[in-house]
Amino acid sequence: MNFTSDNAAGAAPEILAAIARANDGTAGSYGADEITQRLNEKLSRFFEKEVVAHPVATGTAANSLALATLTPHYGAVLCHEGAHIYEDECGAPEFYSGGAKLIPIAGAHGKLSPASITAALGHFQRGFVHHVQPATISLTQTTERGTSYTPADVAAIAGVAKKAGMSLHMDGARFANALAFLKCTPAEITWKAGVDAMSFGVTKNGALAAEAVIFFDPKRAADFEFRRKRGGHLFSKMRFLSVQIEAMLDDGLWLKLAGHANAMAQRLGQGLAHLPGCALEHPVEANEVFARLPSRSAMETLLTAGAKFYPWGPVADRPLIRLVCSFATSEAEVDRFLAAAKRSA
Amino acid sequence: MNFTSDNAAGAAPEILAAIARANDGTAGSYGADEITQRLNEKLSRFFEKEVVAHPVATGTAANSLALATLTPHYGAVLCHEGAHIYEDECGAPEFYSGGAKLIPIAGAHGKLSPASITAALGHFQRGFVHHVQPATISLTQTTERGTSYTPADVAAIAGVAKKAGMSLHMDGARFANALAFLKCTPAEITWKAGVDAMSFGVTKNGALAAEAVIFFDPKRAADFEFRRKRGGHLFSKMRFLSVQIEAMLDDGLWLKLAGHANAMAQRLGQGLAHLPGCALEHPVEANEVFARLPSRSAMETLLTAGAKFYPWGPVADRPLIRLVCSFATSEAEVDRFLAAAKRSA
Amino acid sequence: MNFTSDNAAGAAPEILAAIARANDGTAGSYGADEITQRLNEKLSRFFEKEVVAHPVATGTAANSLALATLTPHYGAVLCHEGAHIYEDECGAPEFYSGGAKLIPIAGAHGKLSPASITAALGHFQRGFVHHVQPATISLTQTTERGTSYTPADVAAIAGVAKKAGMSLHMDGARFANALAFLKCTPAEITWKAGVDAMSFGVTKNGALAAEAVIFFDPKRAADFEFRRKRGGHLFSKMRFLSVQIEAMLDDGLWLKLAGHANAMAQRLGQGLAHLPGCALEHPVEANEVFARLPSRSAMETLLTAGAKFYPWGPVADRPLIRLVCSFATSEAEVDRFLAAAKRSA
Amino acid sequence: MNFTSDNAAGAAPEILAAIARANDGTAGSYGADEITQRLNEKLSRFFEKEVVAHPVATGTAANSLALATLTPHYGAVLCHEGAHIYEDECGAPEFYSGGAKLIPIAGAHGKLSPASITAALGHFQRGFVHHVQPATISLTQTTERGTSYTPADVAAIAGVAKKAGMSLHMDGARFANALAFLKCTPAEITWKAGVDAMSFGVTKNGALAAEAVIFFDPKRAADFEFRRKRGGHLFSKMRFLSVQIEAMLDDGLWLKLAGHANAMAQRLGQGLAHLPGCALEHPVEANEVFARLPSRSAMETLLTAGAKFYPWGPVADRPLIRLVCSFATSEAEVDRFLAAAKRSA
Repeated sequence: MNFTSDNAAGAAPEILAAIARANDGTAGSYGADEITQRLNEKLSRFFEKEVVAHPVATGTAANSLALATLTPHYGAVLCHEGAHIYEDECGAPEFYSGGAKLIPIAGAHGKLSPASITAALGHFQRGFVHHVQPATISLTQTTERGTSYTPADVAAIAGVAKKAGMSLHMDGARFANALAFLKCTPAEITWKAGVDAMSFGVTKNGALAAEAVIFFDPKRAADFEFRRKRGGHLFSKMRFLSVQIEAMLDDGLWLKLAGHANAMAQRLGQGLAHLPGCALEHPVEANEVFARLPSRSAMETLLTAGAKFYPWGPVADRPLIRLVCSFATSEAEVDRFLAAAKRSA
Repeated sequence: MNFTSDNAAGAAPEILAAIARANDGTAGSYGADEITQRLNEKLSRFFEKEVVAHPVATGTAANSLALATLTPHYGAVLCHEGAHIYEDECGAPEFYSGGAKLIPIAGAHGKLSPASITAALGHFQRGFVHHVQPATISLTQTTERGTSYTPADVAAIAGVAKKAGMSLHMDGARFANALAFLKCTPAEITWKAGVDAMSFGVTKNGALAAEAVIFFDPKRAADFEFRRKRGGHLFSKMRFLSVQIEAMLDDGLWLKLAGHANAMAQRLGQGLAHLPGCALEHPVEANEVFARLPSRSAMETLLTAGAKFYPWGPVADRPLIRLVCSFATSEAEVDRFLAAAKRSA
Repeated sequence: MNFTSDNAAGAAPEILAAIARANDGTAGSYGADEITQRLNEKLSRFFEKEVVAHPVATGTAANSLALATLTPHYGAVLCHEGAHIYEDECGAPEFYSGGAKLIPIAGAHGKLSPASITAALGHFQRGFVHHVQPATISLTQTTERGTSYTPADVAAIAGVAKKAGMSLHMDGARFANALAFLKCTPAEITWKAGVDAMSFGVTKNGALAAEAVIFFDPKRAADFEFRRKRGGHLFSKMRFLSVQIEAMLDDGLWLKLAGHANAMAQRLGQGLAHLPGCALEHPVEANEVFARLPSRSAMETLLTAGAKFYPWGPVADRPLIRLVCSFATSEAEVDRFLAAAKRSA
Repeated sequence: MNFTSDNAAGAAPEILAAIARANDGTAGSYGADEITQRLNEKLSRFFEKEVVAHPVATGTAANSLALATLTPHYGAVLCHEGAHIYEDECGAPEFYSGGAKLIPIAGAHGKLSPASITAALGHFQRGFVHHVQPATISLTQTTERGTSYTPADVAAIAGVAKKAGMSLHMDGARFANALAFLKCTPAEITWKAGVDAMSFGVTKNGALAAEAVIFFDPKRAADFEFRRKRGGHLFSKMRFLSVQIEAMLDDGLWLKLAGHANAMAQRLGQGLAHLPGCALEHPVEANEVFARLPSRSAMETLLTAGAKFYPWGPVADRPLIRLVCSFATSEAEVDRFLAAAKRSA
């Protein structure tokens, strides 16, 4: 009953098997291997567009390198005030960009809206040398509150971005979960809706450690490889990164794993929603459940029962908790949690 | 016959087995797992001293993060002009340190000496605000020319460092190969000889991707974790990094793999040294051979025979080439190379 | 009738005279001149404490260098959301600190309060590697809304800072105006109230271009000089910077000039407050007046009459404007403005 | 007899007079004043080309901002090993560029040559992600050894730069002295010879503190203003910077002052060259003399006689000293120095 994070799960067996297969003989290093060479093409098919894709190993690296590529040092990145890039990366985007500014924006259910972005843009004067220059909007898909932007949501925000001459970045640490919920194609939720670059995460999805930075406009990727090298994110035995991403794409593994995680979250969310005194704080639109418990003692009871999860924010009289499901979460675990919750309520 | 780099080899089977073992159930993320928790202790036993050890995934990350921790932004790092950190990391140490300066120093066989360092120090005035301040000396062990510093070599350089109030860093991307050659203990070649911090590399040694940054004085490590996070080098599923290092330590795997690679290099080096027109450019003191071939056509013949390796520097009439052996290099490969070389000479 | 900024005025005649006096013969460069040598002692007397003081030429430099000295690259600076360092320096503090984060905090009349700071601190977990670490609180004295923190205000905030292990910085671009209003000593409003470092600005006060960064604890200043040099803010003919600051201290010139500017602002503010439809948005506690005009046409009338000033924020039906008085503002100008305002109202 | 530096002199009276003239009434701040507005045109006339010119106050700022504008963070700047930007700016160019690398190149009399640059370029592989990418060549005019590049010298180096796709930067801290020596036009020695951007220094020439960064191709200047602001080098009362540069251009003041300084250096150099045991280390091609004295005691005698100057490098049996003349150096001073030198020899 570990619902602390999708990071708490290990790797899917298919991923380890793929790594073992890749470990055959010698190969070119630093990306000059066959697997990496063909990965770009595979991702281009995945996205139905010629993309430039570069593997890295962590989400922080993917986001920070992408943002630094899109944003000049005197630029600003507009993001939700609860965005991982704003709250939980210890200033990595600032470090990689040479000190660009992240502008936090409030919004219900972890989401930005065209209106909230437009209001934030009102504080900055284009070309005015005293102001940082709004350069990039960053969305998290799915959001840090377990909700997902629809293609129409993304397109509306992209409209604001384009009008303001800004780039649109998507932090896709849980991209697969969003797609499994939205039932749309990778293309529809990204470049077709106006996304310029994204972090395509597969670690939370069930890989060991792998993410791909995707540029939908190859011209925007020009300096990326130097930046990755300087960040220490160019792997010598790159095939082991690339093969994880490849294995996710093959036979739709990414969608199968994310679909399972989402189903477990739905089961958990629906179960909790029906318990007296419990309430869902946000709609469950991926693999995360944010639930308000009836009391502090209810939370204690769950922890005592062996459930692992994080309270969200300061613990209140009706504590808010976050529950994350992964590819490895079982129905039995969910049901045990619900049974314990029922007892505690 | 791939002698391009020890990076061209994959991972040792023991490493993959260890990763599979680690993939059991859930675990704390970002280092809050059992394997990572016990790694520090294991490395402390390895080094016979309480160390602070932090896993990262690439050598560039290990070096740059260590150097940035030891060196203020207005500091200078003195290193060999052929050092990997100077030549082959695209300025990563400069990036991580906020623009510290790497000072290249010439020296035979890829090695620094107390005299060459002292001469270089003569250009800087301590406390003079116009000069960057010499803060760190960085040695590569084994060097980029396949030679190894003895404990006495290191101690002599440490003496210069201490006198000048500087830290001593060791880039140990091929640390195991040096130890397999020197037959000394990890302690003797590091902190006992005056090293303050090191990059303990196991990727080239046969891991998938893993290095540990070791601080022999815990106080020096104070800010390291924030720096690592900001660099995007804190892995969510950290157990998979840590277990690679652990597996190397268990049963002396690191030494077994390095010993094999070194033996292959010795076989290769001795074979070449006896061929007419061939000559070793540097003594073979680890797993690399730098050989001068009798002619350009000899080099072409080897390449045509299917041997893979890099010419070193501009191709001259008597080309200099680099041959790197790994844990996976076989005697048969070496002998085939030597046979081809004999034919070509 | 130029009320756009105290920067619009030139330099006080006493400053130009001092520069001319300093231009006598040769002198040591980069601060090795007599005037700079004695400046530290003069400022120590001014602050009734042994301080470390370093002249620079711009407020942005003073603030950014001070903040970067107090704040590690993974740190956070808490400041008012309207702070100059947050809004109007194009990310200079982020640049100088290597990407530290500025956290904007709301507050009436441009002021931070212990409560608002404490609330903001609640979002950060000390030692948690994913969070930037709150390191510094920065106050502007006088604030960007023309109000002044009393010694008790500062002490209360310093209490929060000390409890949280943070430094307290004061942006004193209009420090003299605050003191002229508060009638307290420089010591009382700074180190005696808990300030660790400050930007002591005299440019707006009537100098050509000069600020001093003051450290009340000499130990905190250790790296400052290297940082200043690397920022390009160490002047070769330093005597010309230092003498401006010295001239301000001599015979209380700083207080005389600031007192005049404040008096003009009071006259302006009181005049406007009595006009029908006009209202002061913030109390006038230094040399700035924030006034709401009765109508857009009233604002137009004033501009047509030759008055120069900036609207503050988007122009509303009852426009908010900012009026800044300087050492050079005359009563006649103020009265002409008030007369025009009366006609327009 | 102060020959330590041209920085030891104060400001020329014409400069102080210009500042006083500029101090008339209010003016737009941050460059929105009339003097700054017309400065670009004046410098365009000076260089016989539409340039983009931005005033800053120090040479370090001018060089670092210009180099950072021309060089990506993963780029390299090739310069003489004795270049001020390499040796005497405490890593300011590295700081401003986000960690670009300065590559030191040896060369007689402080000068780079096409051959030495080409040899240095041989160490870097274009597009190879492990290598920093050569982006900029920086010349100092006049050099740190008091010699000057002729238009043909510059053009030859520009040829190497263009062929390698690099920019050519000129550190013109003593630009006026070079022109006074070369008797060519500003255009001939800069853009006509292939210079892309320069630091046009007038502080050493006799200003208080003023330099202009000149871009000969306006497109290259795109981001400069944001960079200057973030560096804290945008002055609020900009008119006082701009007017210094303007005053230098008016009536050829720059050339008059530099011509005098050069004449004094010639007098000094020729005088020393004829003394027994004395020798000029470098040709005197501007306002600096590098002379070898007959003995340590000769140097001591000169110092005892009240002469101020710096020994150059470690003091040898025949000490090398540097003597710098300024606009304020008098014939009498030179002659007194020569007389003392004669006695000491």
